[in-house]
Amino acid sequence: MPNRPVLDFWYELASPYACLSALRIEGLADEAGVNLRWRPFLLGPIFAAQGWSTSPYELYPAKGRYMWRDTVRRARRQGLEFAKPTEFPQNSLAATRLALAGREEGWAPAFSKALFRAQFGEGLNIADEAVLSAALKEAGRDPGATLPLARNEEIRARLKAETEYAKSLGIFGAPFFVTEHGEPFWGDDRLEEALEWAREGR
Amino acid sequence: MPNRPVLDFWYELASPYACLSALRIEGLADEAGVNLRWRPFLLGPIFAAQGWSTSPYELYPAKGRYMWRDTVRRARRQGLEFAKPTEFPQNSLAATRLALAGREEGWAPAFSKALFRAQFGEGLNIADEAVLSAALKEAGRDPGATLPLARNEEIRARLKAETEYAKSLGIFGAPFFVTEHGEPFWGDDRLEEALEWAREGR
Repeated sequence: MPNRPVLDFWYELASPYACLSALRIEGLADEAGVNLRWRPFLLGPIFAAQGWSTSPYELYPAKGRYMWRDTVRRARRQGLEFAKPTEFPQNSLAATRLALAGREEGWAPAFSKALFRAQFGEGLNIADEAVLSAALKEAGRDPGATLPLARNEEIRARLKAETEYAKSLGIFGAPFFVTEHGEPFWGDDRLEEALEWAREGR
Repeated sequence: MPNRPVLDFWYELASPYACLSALRIEGLADEAGVNLRWRPFLLGPIFAAQGWSTSPYELYPAKGRYMWRDTVRRARRQGLEFAKPTEFPQNSLAATRLALAGREEGWAPAFSKALFRAQFGEGLNIADEAVLSAALKEAGRDPGATLPLARNEEIRARLKAETEYAKSLGIFGAPFFVTEHGEPFWGDDRLEEALEWAREGR
């Protein structure tokens, strides 16, 4: 709908907390009268720039153990079963390029939610072409026609630019929410507060 | 009160989020019918063990900038003015030893709250003897008789043991809450959830 406030929802497809937000954000945004802009990006290059070779949850095992306990608890409150996938963190490059391709055509949310459920609900790997294909189908896309977009030069360049832009905004984790006035909120536990600020035009 | 559930409140005196919890936890615990155990400890040795020479908020500037914005927002909701102190992170060693000395005598909460207010409300340095003295007075102690406890051998050893114990529990940040059944909660934003679990005996 036009003239409603907009909230940018920055998400990394390999992030457990971004998953929790993705699977509950639409209902909450609707209630708040806020339009969402789904903005897939990559945390890998941002982590690498600060000297991390992988997810901080892998680099700092105590933090990782806690995170899985916390996300399982939070997921349960949302009525979701949640578990660490066999592979973690996953390579989200192809998935993120596809999600970005789907932004303008409007299928990024359905595709992203399908991938989050596959990864953290069923333990599947979103780098697998079969998993990507199933998610595209769930989002109403033809995998044969759509999968090649993961290697499309223009999409690759756009994703690089999006990730650079995220970094320039000071984004260092996911999910990250930014209001039209630039107010930043980090983490699934700030989703309600971000929507409140967006709704109030702050 | 006896027979009420107990929640361990692990806090580092130089931590902004621990400050937010310390200044609101007592009323919430009372409402929930939960007894608190205030457990001062040092994050420095835990950070050092994972290769960090200082606070992650200093090591990762984007995270640091966001943290100050977030804590100021959260403090405002609590009716508090909050600001980055001139020196950050502060050396909390003497302060923490004193707080530990005050645990058994019951003045650790009042002393710790006075230090948090001095540090994040007034920008003072809790390593200064004058600031420690003022906080001791606020907690009803005689500074002249109490300050030497910061160099007491037994207290030093007890703080080392407490910090080691915190590490063994998987504590990697502050504030950290642990129920009697060992359920861990990290961060000021998990305080309500921790009290709920404690109250329900989980």
